[in-house]
Amino acid sequence: MPVLVMKFGGTSVATLDRIRRAAKRVGVEVAKGYDVIVIVSAMSGETNKLVGYVDETSPLYDAREYDAVVSSGENVTAGLMALTLQEMDVPARSWQGWQVPLMTNSAHASARIEEIPTDNINAKFGEGMKVAVVAGFQGISPEGRITTLGRGGSDTTAVAFAAAFGAERCDIYTDVDGVYTTDPRICEKARKLDKIAFEEMLELASLGAKVLQTRSVELAMRFKVKLRVLSSFEEQSDEAGTLVCDEEEIMESNVVAGVAYSRDEAKMTLLSVADRPGIAAAIFGPLAEAGVNVDMIVQNISEDGRTDMTFSCPTNEVARAEKAMNDLKTNGELNFAEIVTDADVAKVSVVGIGMRSAAGVAAKMFKVLSDEGVNIQVITTSEIKISVLVARKYMELAVQALHDAFELEKA
Amino acid sequence: MPVLVMKFGGTSVATLDRIRRAAKRVGVEVAKGYDVIVIVSAMSGETNKLVGYVDETSPLYDAREYDAVVSSGENVTAGLMALTLQEMDVPARSWQGWQVPLMTNSAHASARIEEIPTDNINAKFGEGMKVAVVAGFQGISPEGRITTLGRGGSDTTAVAFAAAFGAERCDIYTDVDGVYTTDPRICEKARKLDKIAFEEMLELASLGAKVLQTRSVELAMRFKVKLRVLSSFEEQSDEAGTLVCDEEEIMESNVVAGVAYSRDEAKMTLLSVADRPGIAAAIFGPLAEAGVNVDMIVQNISEDGRTDMTFSCPTNEVARAEKAMNDLKTNGELNFAEIVTDADVAKVSVVGIGMRSAAGVAAKMFKVLSDEGVNIQVITTSEIKISVLVARKYMELAVQALHDAFELEKA
Repeated sequence: MPVLVMKFGGTSVATLDRIRRAAKRVGVEVAKGYDVIVIVSAMSGETNKLVGYVDETSPLYDAREYDAVVSSGENVTAGLMALTLQEMDVPARSWQGWQVPLMTNSAHASARIEEIPTDNINAKFGEGMKVAVVAGFQGISPEGRITTLGRGGSDTTAVAFAAAFGAERCDIYTDVDGVYTTDPRICEKARKLDKIAFEEMLELASLGAKVLQTRSVELAMRFKVKLRVLSSFEEQSDEAGTLVCDEEEIMESNVVAGVAYSRDEAKMTLLSVADRPGIAAAIFGPLAEAGVNVDMIVQNISEDGRTDMTFSCPTNEVARAEKAMNDLKTNGELNFAEIVTDADVAKVSVVGIGMRSAAGVAAKMFKVLSDEGVNIQVITTSEIKISVLVARKYMELAVQALHDAFELEKA
Repeated sequence: MPVLVMKFGGTSVATLDRIRRAAKRVGVEVAKGYDVIVIVSAMSGETNKLVGYVDETSPLYDAREYDAVVSSGENVTAGLMALTLQEMDVPARSWQGWQVPLMTNSAHASARIEEIPTDNINAKFGEGMKVAVVAGFQGISPEGRITTLGRGGSDTTAVAFAAAFGAERCDIYTDVDGVYTTDPRICEKARKLDKIAFEEMLELASLGAKVLQTRSVELAMRFKVKLRVLSSFEEQSDEAGTLVCDEEEIMESNVVAGVAYSRDEAKMTLLSVADRPGIAAAIFGPLAEAGVNVDMIVQNISEDGRTDMTFSCPTNEVARAEKAMNDLKTNGELNFAEIVTDADVAKVSVVGIGMRSAAGVAAKMFKVLSDEGVNIQVITTSEIKISVLVARKYMELAVQALHDAFELEKA
């Protein structure tokens, strides 16, 4: 039998009624002849409640105990989903991560999947079971402790199962009906994409689009797992939602696939740093050690052997970054005049694999923003994306103007 | 190191504050030099919530999935208790049932413990861990599925661990401060017992006292586990609460240890049954098959080869009992004139190992009730208890009168 993986997020299993609705969707696929592996998240709100308990109990918690606590929500929905399917006369049973066993490394709270043996579940499929319901987000370490894969980890669980079982497709049911050219909440012309390439989805996810966990897209790309994002709140046809797939499967596409944004960016500038070899390592090594996720970096031209170094990071890491820099200055390991922080910036990016072959995308982007009076503060580019840092008040304007200019509302 | 088992019930771990209070008690025992095994229930209300989900999802549920769902509450408290202890610098870690592994049979939802290997936890004690926190109520079947031990099963988990690890004592922390001569809510003279014999506790538990699960007392008696019941809401000395122990350890005790009652009893009478050999089996076999827990049985003297058969059972099993009897009549397997049901009775019992050697306890009991104008409907006795069925309206009166007559307020 062909295997299909279906993943239901927290809002899709938030109540017993929603679990029933999800189970009906599963029943439809079983009726088509699939053996189905269902990956479930915890009921929405449950994991946050458990994380809250742990934070309140122990601010610097033992991550092994954190994992033991926060993984329990998924066990509840897995059992309830199996029972709901059984009520519909669909032969089903639940598996917790350790029962599969989904083997991970020992990096508690952000473990990486190492192996998913298929014998156990395939044997049950062989005995007539039609649906294996698996608790998402969790696994077991070589030491036999429960691990979790990090927030949003159920997406990654789903893709990993699809890869391990050679599934025909991995359907991610969520509270939106697909991947959009940009966020419909800030640009009303945003259009749902029927297909998007892995590379594009990966950039969009890491540049701020929240529809899929970045790691799940990486994994899907590596193992060529066809990934479909669709809504659990609507009746769905086989063509619903957005298919994330190999670029070869997309006949023709716009040069730019989408516009992403990230609101919580901060820009920091170290004024008058000695411009010497190794200076970048002297700054960004300690920042990495302090847990600061540096994104864009710009170094001004040098004057009198000194330069200004600018970088961006998430706003909630500013305090850590400032402390790390000031510590270096106090220790005499780094000399600079001043740190200037601007926590009022946003990142806007255009993404598209078509940019590889089409020239002039960057020029057009800069002109559009200039025409709107939006000053560009920092620029980074890759083969398939261009990102700019702008004052936060211009963010919506920039997204809308770019969406218009690249005619993303047209298929 | 001597081992101590400490069990905390749902109300004792209902909030993070209460978990902290319980952890402090554990810390006190660790400071005395014990290696401690802590058994935790789910936060109060959690298991009921999960049972409610299952009941609503699937009235005739698959007990394997029921167990997977309802066992999750204990996992949360086990992790939180371990974290709380770590915050207090007490080396601790949590175990879920399958990690121990606590092996049970496959009787899901009311599984029996088959084995508790001690190597795993003892190895950690050897490495300096001071507290093993174990999720109560749950185990793992030979098929690798999660099992639960039935409601109140955490008491049984605690006693089983105490037996397996040869613990010095098993302390059951709960919301009352010990075992009383009777329920203080209906008899204000009720006195907390310092000690009570296993046999007495077993009778009291099965006759209606709710302080300990009956199975846990059976297990403690079989393996000679000293069991102490005490309150988690008060500062406790080494002599606090009630010690449940071998009768040899109780120097002197009252003839009667306590008065128990059970409110939800029903009396059923089959009028004019043929009085022939095998008639009892013909009635009580089918009742057992129908899941009716028959308690007391009385057979009237026979007249003209026919007799009346009276038995008692819990009120919520009356409908099932009536159906089973009427089915037998319809099938022609049993002939009787009528079923008369009185769902308005209660059972009152006096219990005490002293009754073995002291004559006249029954006579005194009957006289006391007679003096109060309480009519006795059915009587059963064992070596150490006498139970009577009375109209429910007399229940409190009967308990109070018996407590007075046997002077249970005096130590």
